[in-house]
Amino acid sequence: MFFNKNKIKITKEQKKELIDAAVNASKNSYHPITQKAVGAAVMNTEGKIFQGCNIQTTISGLGACAEQCAIYHAVACGSYDFSAVAVSFPSEKFIKPCGMCLQLIAEFAQVADKDTLIIMINSKLKTKETSINKELKDAYGPRVAGKDIKDYEKNHV
Amino acid sequence: MFFNKNKIKITKEQKKELIDAAVNASKNSYHPITQKAVGAAVMNTEGKIFQGCNIQTTISGLGACAEQCAIYHAVACGSYDFSAVAVSFPSEKFIKPCGMCLQLIAEFAQVADKDTLIIMINSKLKTKETSINKELKDAYGPRVAGKDIKDYEKNHV
Amino acid sequence: MFFNKNKIKITKEQKKELIDAAVNASKNSYHPITQKAVGAAVMNTEGKIFQGCNIQTTISGLGACAEQCAIYHAVACGSYDFSAVAVSFPSEKFIKPCGMCLQLIAEFAQVADKDTLIIMINSKLKTKETSINKELKDAYGPRVAGKDIKDYEKNHV
Amino acid sequence: MFFNKNKIKITKEQKKELIDAAVNASKNSYHPITQKAVGAAVMNTEGKIFQGCNIQTTISGLGACAEQCAIYHAVACGSYDFSAVAVSFPSEKFIKPCGMCLQLIAEFAQVADKDTLIIMINSKLKTKETSINKELKDAYGPRVAGKDIKDYEKNHV
Repeated sequence: MFFNKNKIKITKEQKKELIDAAVNASKNSYHPITQKAVGAAVMNTEGKIFQGCNIQTTISGLGACAEQCAIYHAVACGSYDFSAVAVSFPSEKFIKPCGMCLQLIAEFAQVADKDTLIIMINSKLKTKETSINKELKDAYGPRVAGKDIKDYEKNHV
Repeated sequence: MFFNKNKIKITKEQKKELIDAAVNASKNSYHPITQKAVGAAVMNTEGKIFQGCNIQTTISGLGACAEQCAIYHAVACGSYDFSAVAVSFPSEKFIKPCGMCLQLIAEFAQVADKDTLIIMINSKLKTKETSINKELKDAYGPRVAGKDIKDYEKNHV
Repeated sequence: MFFNKNKIKITKEQKKELIDAAVNASKNSYHPITQKAVGAAVMNTEGKIFQGCNIQTTISGLGACAEQCAIYHAVACGSYDFSAVAVSFPSEKFIKPCGMCLQLIAEFAQVADKDTLIIMINSKLKTKETSINKELKDAYGPRVAGKDIKDYEKNHV
Repeated sequence: MFFNKNKIKITKEQKKELIDAAVNASKNSYHPITQKAVGAAVMNTEGKIFQGCNIQTTISGLGACAEQCAIYHAVACGSYDFSAVAVSFPSEKFIKPCGMCLQLIAEFAQVADKDTLIIMINSKLKTKETSINKELKDAYGPRVAGKDIKDYEKNHV
């Protein structure tokens, strides 16, 4: 096991706020290729929220999922100790973050040494919860790679 | 030629503000691999600034340059009509945005149909200017690909 | 469920051949950053093998894991109907493909509509098996996105 | 200047062979999103050719241009000392490699410390030549970053 068992701490009100942020962020979606507006938001351990949206370019391999965008937004602002990630996807089916986004979530979860809540929001604004520990078990990352976590914690939150 | 000749409009004060933002953003750099703190900032046509920093993970191919991070941050907030990008790099030599970042800048420059100022900041806080039109001539992008630019302009700032 | 239940078909001899290929591929590893030589190999449904290695550049976000490299190598040669992926990692601990590689494997598994065997090889040349269906359950991909799979099958093996 | 002035050495016959390989590679293009078949090929200093094609997935940010694919194919096979890259694009207009591909070409050009020929092939099979030194001047890469090039040359063809 790579993450400790500390319970994810997030209040009902915080969840609501995070979900609203993810849904709102989908309005900024830059999706010329698929026309699918995806929104996401991450919350750090202090309860601060950073939004993201999917970004598509004419180059295969250059672009970002909404979750990735939200995480980069947070890091840009100095935060990478996340409690939860929410993603709003325009389908009735609940859509999980893709493997690439799960990897990014796992990377920071390993640094923080705790699980991260993942909230999926469908087109009817229903939600379903899971966590990085369930979705990408024993993921590769700083701890598995045997890195000195101090190198990673420098700018923590 | 893909971009029109409209002069880039940015005041001296705005430049200073953008440069300061790029330098400050480097403090949030997440650089466990190289220990090199890079900061960047983009300014939209309304003068609003979005910061970014380099982000490195344990996975080759998953991470972002500071310029890319700043651009994703801006798009997350609904802006992608950029006047200028500034990047602060910890070396005396002036460092240009990498090809991947130039491509991303070119993508949005083509949508906006105008050139984008690029300001490089070195470790002595000296600056040097260039532009996307000079650095990645005739870049591939939405206009070269013959895309309907309306698909791209939907959420334009 | 997105993949049918067809058993993965691969003989003992084919497994050995695939494992050898992955181990050998690690000799080509281009790893100036981490000095960790990772090798991989994919086998298509006809038993043909394509090797890959990790590739690292000076740019965060530009590079490839060994599995990704092997898959791109296969696609370059016209194959993307994979039975199995093997990855050789220089640690005693068995290392799973990262989330980004799992996503790529899942993408092609959905097109082929079957599970893909994943073989991990450690530094003592011991192996451990899993599959994409176990590691990235209900992954996003062409079938989940409701794509017309015929668009994807055109060049099938 | 980062590259020495050694003339690129490639015979007329080799050029023809490289061009043919790039055109042929476009048949393997995996392009469910854009339906645009792009092919590429790289030649190492020994005259060996490695082909590639564009690869598109359902995930923005996961995929490869044809040139990138060809380069990864070559590295997978132990080669990264390139004389020339050819790319075949389905348009009458000559299309240059995107910034991301130019960056990848520049990375290896810096290690080899020489320029790399770039041949563009249009839909009428006409060709036009340029080079990495012309297209991405003073690119970031191992030499600019002050890396010990020996770390990069280990497996040199």
